[in-house]
Amino acid sequence: MSAADPDCLFCKIVAGEIPGDTVRETDRVLAFRDVNPQAPTHVLVVPKAHHENAAASAAADPDGFAELFTVAAAVARDEGLPGHRAVFNTGAAVGQTVFHTHLHVIGGRDLAWPPG
Amino acid sequence: MSAADPDCLFCKIVAGEIPGDTVRETDRVLAFRDVNPQAPTHVLVVPKAHHENAAASAAADPDGFAELFTVAAAVARDEGLPGHRAVFNTGAAVGQTVFHTHLHVIGGRDLAWPPG
Repeated sequence: MSAADPDCLFCKIVAGEIPGDTVRETDRVLAFRDVNPQAPTHVLVVPKAHHENAAASAAADPDGFAELFTVAAAVARDEGLPGHRAVFNTGAAVGQTVFHTHLHVIGGRDLAWPPG
Repeated sequence: MSAADPDCLFCKIVAGEIPGDTVRETDRVLAFRDVNPQAPTHVLVVPKAHHENAAASAAADPDGFAELFTVAAAVARDEGLPGHRAVFNTGAAVGQTVFHTHLHVIGGRDLAWPPG
């Protein structure tokens, strides 16, 4: 597990230093609403451990990484969604803006294809 | 590990009964090009074990599930991508058409936000 990065927005939310609109929490995972929602449900599911992207989290802690998706499914159930899309951006080139692994869980409206 | 589903398209690709344009393979994971690509790189990364969606695969085999993302990152490196988007659809309501877990790895062009 990587130590919290003092300059990382999501580490600060995990630590409670910045408020987040939390919807689910486990020992390893925090889920909170995106501040710029793109759909009726738009929740970010993040590992509490700081890693810069999905592959880094997956390699560092496979169990904790997998838990992001069981939490995402629980959020979708909580929200009554008939389906949901789960998205990771890796790299600024595709829109990653916070370099702490975060899974976008999106649903509650029709979603077009392709996903961007 | 779930047995192969005889009616599942991706189980048949994993078994070699239907050809796939494979780009990477490990003991647990197969990566092949989407037949209806939405970007210069559009690869599907699937667990060989049959489960219907991401959360089911994550719960059944966390290590194998996490490996989807290390394989996705390797594909992105192979393709020379400066970044990539990784997407799971869960449920027909958001466009899931094959009910065998598959991660869309997309890159090689500008990607809009929201992701659908």
